[in-house]
Amino acid sequence: MPALTPQADDFPRWYQDVLNKAELAENGPVRGTMVIRPYGYGLWERMQAELDARIKACGAENAYFPLFIPESYFQREAEHVEGFSPELAVVTVAGGRELEEPIVVRPTSETVMGEYMAKWLQSYRDLPLLLNQWANVVRWELRPRLFLRTTEFLWQEGHTAHATREEARAYAERILHEVYEDFMVRVLAMPVIVGLKTASERFAGADNSLSLEAMMRDGKALQMGTTHELGQNFARVFGIEFLDAEGERRTAWTTSWGVTTRMIGGLIMAHGDDDGLRVPPHLAHVQAVVVAVRDEGDVVACSRTLADELRAAGVRVHLDDRADVSLGRRATEWELKGIPLRLELGPRDLAGDEVTLVRRVSGAPKTPVALARAVAAVRDALEAEQQVLWDQALAQRDSRIEDVTTLDEARAAAENGWARLPWDAVGTDGEAALASGGVTVRCLTREDGSVPVSENEADLVAYVARAY
Amino acid sequence: MPALTPQADDFPRWYQDVLNKAELAENGPVRGTMVIRPYGYGLWERMQAELDARIKACGAENAYFPLFIPESYFQREAEHVEGFSPELAVVTVAGGRELEEPIVVRPTSETVMGEYMAKWLQSYRDLPLLLNQWANVVRWELRPRLFLRTTEFLWQEGHTAHATREEARAYAERILHEVYEDFMVRVLAMPVIVGLKTASERFAGADNSLSLEAMMRDGKALQMGTTHELGQNFARVFGIEFLDAEGERRTAWTTSWGVTTRMIGGLIMAHGDDDGLRVPPHLAHVQAVVVAVRDEGDVVACSRTLADELRAAGVRVHLDDRADVSLGRRATEWELKGIPLRLELGPRDLAGDEVTLVRRVSGAPKTPVALARAVAAVRDALEAEQQVLWDQALAQRDSRIEDVTTLDEARAAAENGWARLPWDAVGTDGEAALASGGVTVRCLTREDGSVPVSENEADLVAYVARAY
Repeated sequence: MPALTPQADDFPRWYQDVLNKAELAENGPVRGTMVIRPYGYGLWERMQAELDARIKACGAENAYFPLFIPESYFQREAEHVEGFSPELAVVTVAGGRELEEPIVVRPTSETVMGEYMAKWLQSYRDLPLLLNQWANVVRWELRPRLFLRTTEFLWQEGHTAHATREEARAYAERILHEVYEDFMVRVLAMPVIVGLKTASERFAGADNSLSLEAMMRDGKALQMGTTHELGQNFARVFGIEFLDAEGERRTAWTTSWGVTTRMIGGLIMAHGDDDGLRVPPHLAHVQAVVVAVRDEGDVVACSRTLADELRAAGVRVHLDDRADVSLGRRATEWELKGIPLRLELGPRDLAGDEVTLVRRVSGAPKTPVALARAVAAVRDALEAEQQVLWDQALAQRDSRIEDVTTLDEARAAAENGWARLPWDAVGTDGEAALASGGVTVRCLTREDGSVPVSENEADLVAYVARAY
Repeated sequence: MPALTPQADDFPRWYQDVLNKAELAENGPVRGTMVIRPYGYGLWERMQAELDARIKACGAENAYFPLFIPESYFQREAEHVEGFSPELAVVTVAGGRELEEPIVVRPTSETVMGEYMAKWLQSYRDLPLLLNQWANVVRWELRPRLFLRTTEFLWQEGHTAHATREEARAYAERILHEVYEDFMVRVLAMPVIVGLKTASERFAGADNSLSLEAMMRDGKALQMGTTHELGQNFARVFGIEFLDAEGERRTAWTTSWGVTTRMIGGLIMAHGDDDGLRVPPHLAHVQAVVVAVRDEGDVVACSRTLADELRAAGVRVHLDDRADVSLGRRATEWELKGIPLRLELGPRDLAGDEVTLVRRVSGAPKTPVALARAVAAVRDALEAEQQVLWDQALAQRDSRIEDVTTLDEARAAAENGWARLPWDAVGTDGEAALASGGVTVRCLTREDGSVPVSENEADLVAYVARAY
């Protein structure tokens, strides 16, 4: 009896099974909220560390802005209020009293950060102003699904101000490629299509939204992250202005960009298989588990020594010395959790000065490895498994992107994967027609794969799919 | 004209001046909330890193529980609801509708974590259950002060379950000493008195609260952190139970423990002087700033090389190459921010293959250092400055703790520092009498300085002070 519903039988149920059995997350008591369990949170901590280093390398500094935003702030930018109003959670009572002005629990922080950027920004010398925060945000969800759409989620939100539209755009693209794409490709082993959102899919208040789209193993798309060119929309209403080198007062150009705990859902659905999660070694907070097979002779002591050696060599390792739990049950647990490598050490291994190496990602046969070269073998295997995951994800994605020319073909292709077709063959009307059947334009790219500056450029390519 | 109000003139105004001038934090738009600016947040990031490593070394795992808690959860533990009700912020409208059950924005997470611990805990093999989370919490503040008392603050909250009262107590004490005290002493260079809170100062719902108390430079006390023995109070109402080795169902014993962004306020007030903040080198996210004095010859290039060398040697360093800003103005800025070491490199220094080392903490005279041994000199100076801060803080605290025997003497001593006297000479009535004049019992210790298990132990010592 398999622990999980097979993916082919019922993908959403498989996803829910993995969340439960791998102890990743469960529903919170308030509808739509989420409890992230330690194993799931460990994935998030590693995502944070990798992203934070890249964000800092791009010159942005972390800060923290309040959870509570006066309701009036939202009403200043017309599209923003329209886009977010249906999703807001509102505090009306505090300290035992009805509040005079209701307070919004932040769904995003453009407004409050705009207010302070305006205060802090004086001269062109202060530009670019590059801020980021790691925080929780709340958007009331009618159809919540753990990690993918939750009422409260965790994210980072970057907010920057620049002297010109060109500088703002260049920075938004830098974040898109150097932070997000680099992280998703190198760490998550997830191929992403990077492109421009159409007008109907844009962030509320943005001039342009750029996104990274990944394919899940059921062929559907997931938006993994976005950066927004906000033009001067927020700068005008919040007064984000500066004196230029000639002493003239000018309005700044701003951007915002974010990725969320939703990426954990994407990771599960992009790499998981019928045995559970498969975590890419570059991300894994547990890259290898040393399993003491039995409490006999020197087995436990040697397992501990091996784990210590691996740790000293920089491998993120966990020692499983629960000799009173059967090996089979423990193997299933580590497979469900998708730990890349398992090193099983039993009396027979020890007698031969060996350890048995089991690879979760590739599913390659168990191989004995001399204890003396276990560290080197683990390092090599981690790199190899990272590559296998990437190769598999890329091959599966590319095999399920179909080049088509008509809307009907696109609709048909979206039953099993993505369609790629000329944006001219879709257009705003075609987009609406597709949307009525649950199929959306994920993003637009140029023919060479680069990101367009406007959907009105000639010869754009549209990626069309069902999406989470 | 000094940049700051002198401490001796008006300590609270000095504190406010430091927050502004060192760009640490400012008020948020909703009363009582706080914007933590990048320099202030950098301090918090380092606090988090140091604490998180210690918490993990004690076996606790990070997780994340929802911001939103059903109001009914609070009503289950009688003291807890009574203690927190006046401080709650309540969401009554979400997604455009009035909610059927109001939602509380978490002021602390005993209730929601209790609910899930009860679900996850099955057998004695699952114990101890050791969880921690880094999160924001909200407590409506009537007299907010930045970092010290804010409506929203950032913290970590640990929540654990154990098989026996003794194990729960031992773990609460382990966190108190191995995580909090060790961090405050070694990293923050802040001496703390560790003791038991009296019944009137206990956490709402706890059997015992243990705290760490530090002295500020105006002689007042600040509670820097707490751990709570919750007994079976929350375990009983949330059903946190387990089967013991004999198959009997038993109720667990729980603890909770937390430190907050308030520590940043404590750091400022414990170490700051009339020139600004003084950051302990072990904490500082910028331990040394290399200042290129002028853009002339190789000055900027050599400054960059020096900064790179220091960085490669593990020093957290910032390069200040703003040659168009006067040296004096930049020196003042780095002094305000309390960067431990400044390395000024000008044409004259360079001509002598030297750099000028300036020590913020000790205020020792500027000294020329050969460039060839700058890395070693910086390392030595960082350790020396850390020691100086500790020595100064300890000497100033000990000189302002007065041993007294009566309440009147205690009240008088609290005008300029702390009083230490037998708890028998205070008692519950004396405590109330002192409190009416704004003086509180900070904590109780045994005569040897260890932490008592109950305020009813004989021969306890009370520390009495005015407090933030």
